[in-house]
Amino acid sequence: MSSFSVTILGSNSALPTSERYPTAQIVRVSERFFLVDCGEGTQMQMRKHKINFSKIDSVFISHLHGDHCFGLIGLISTLGLLGRNKPLYLYAHADLEKILVPQLAYFCDELPYEVKFVHLSYDEPVVIYEDKNVIVKSLPLAHRIPTCGFIFQEKEKQPNIRKEAIFKYELSIKEIASIKRREAYYDASGELVSQDELIIEPPKPRSYAFCSDTRYYRKIIPYIQEVNLLYHEATFLHELKTLAKSSGHTTVKQAATIAKDAQVGKLILGHFSNRYRTLNPLLQEAKEVFENSVLVKDGEVFSIEN
Amino acid sequence: MSSFSVTILGSNSALPTSERYPTAQIVRVSERFFLVDCGEGTQMQMRKHKINFSKIDSVFISHLHGDHCFGLIGLISTLGLLGRNKPLYLYAHADLEKILVPQLAYFCDELPYEVKFVHLSYDEPVVIYEDKNVIVKSLPLAHRIPTCGFIFQEKEKQPNIRKEAIFKYELSIKEIASIKRREAYYDASGELVSQDELIIEPPKPRSYAFCSDTRYYRKIIPYIQEVNLLYHEATFLHELKTLAKSSGHTTVKQAATIAKDAQVGKLILGHFSNRYRTLNPLLQEAKEVFENSVLVKDGEVFSIEN
Repeated sequence: MSSFSVTILGSNSALPTSERYPTAQIVRVSERFFLVDCGEGTQMQMRKHKINFSKIDSVFISHLHGDHCFGLIGLISTLGLLGRNKPLYLYAHADLEKILVPQLAYFCDELPYEVKFVHLSYDEPVVIYEDKNVIVKSLPLAHRIPTCGFIFQEKEKQPNIRKEAIFKYELSIKEIASIKRREAYYDASGELVSQDELIIEPPKPRSYAFCSDTRYYRKIIPYIQEVNLLYHEATFLHELKTLAKSSGHTTVKQAATIAKDAQVGKLILGHFSNRYRTLNPLLQEAKEVFENSVLVKDGEVFSIEN
Repeated sequence: MSSFSVTILGSNSALPTSERYPTAQIVRVSERFFLVDCGEGTQMQMRKHKINFSKIDSVFISHLHGDHCFGLIGLISTLGLLGRNKPLYLYAHADLEKILVPQLAYFCDELPYEVKFVHLSYDEPVVIYEDKNVIVKSLPLAHRIPTCGFIFQEKEKQPNIRKEAIFKYELSIKEIASIKRREAYYDASGELVSQDELIIEPPKPRSYAFCSDTRYYRKIIPYIQEVNLLYHEATFLHELKTLAKSSGHTTVKQAATIAKDAQVGKLILGHFSNRYRTLNPLLQEAKEVFENSVLVKDGEVFSIEN
């Protein structure tokens, strides 16, 4: 199966520590690497976790709070010093362009590549990126400022033809292509041959949803239904649900409820408030609602599996 | 003796790695902490090396290349989240204010303290900061853009009065104050008493000079003459002296020559080019000219001694 994984580069809320950097993740789909959020220190975390800088062409920024984007200027500058010449696409709120362009003009006036700004909209989920392997959709969330999560969906692969069938029916290339498109196939005697005899079903497309920052927001459930892996912010324990709501964040219990109701495969949680010295109570609260829950750590890699 | 030390938070040149962060140092004089340069990740390095955020009131920025200042916006934001209410002074090129103010307006609109910009001049060394323990002077360097080093000088302490002298001559508080100012003292019989009998000389004031980034620039020598500790950039080995000059940097040999000719106590070197996989040749080149040379590492603390 081709690679589909998430590497956690930073998992803390607004106040970073030396152990937990602000939010940043690498989503790898086959040989393509996507950067999701870019808190301060993202480029150092990329070095530490051996992410190839040249493989990143697209950066998705959930929202314009500093802990999700202060690492951009350093990363952009470094990519220039490394001699990059292909464009870098930044998917973010339109304000990012206004903020970054003067900084680029001052600090990166000889940048050897182009930074292309793609402005996100926040009304409803839309496809913002597509290539032969993956579709990326924005997922509007409910935070204090315009915020989008992102859904990464593998594209459905064509089925493989069974070798026995190729020999038995002496299939031509044209016939094979037609069968791969799941068109009906009749043998020499005019009998319909069953799909089962002809093809091997491809693995089911996998999916990953990133949801940070947001208050408890049940509207996302239909869009993340049955994703294999869900990252959801979980800033506070449920005893602080009032603070969570007023600050536009989610409690662990709420995040786990979203995971349960959306019937996701696995839930990974991050963006914890610095008030928690030990995180065990958070894990416990999550597991009470949704057993397959994990608290992320910087540097962890989650393989996305069916 | 009171504390006077330098903590290296970041020591790399423009391209940070996971081992060497971009330039930042903490200069500690007694209970006061000064931040010199603030590359990306400085706040995380401060956490890692247990620097008390509330003890920093002044930040000195040598020049406006990203590897010396991209950590400012994150640090300023964090200080706000930590509830700081006293002003933070930023000593830097006037352009920093133009660049940072729009970012502060966007990202830190509810900052509970004031950021005060102090614009440096680049013509000649001037006193830019003074308190009861220390004087800080700017030291114009020769880089591609306006750049200042910084010299930290302990203030001369008053001598202590010998206890024996207080009893022998029955010194009044007024007389003690006069003797501490090194004024002549005559005993009851009108005889001049020698200074040696009256006072214990205070420790000689210590000094630290920070010089980065700069090409080989001998004009600084009179200003850093006999400093106890000198940090000097040393981006390249001397075989790359042409590149060093054209890029506004210093070779190891040149930095060591500055240290030797200025008769400094100890030389610490940093800001190495990423091309060097092993740094031993750099240390060797330095020691050939100036024996008391050290290559710095992130996290190291250098106590400044007479």
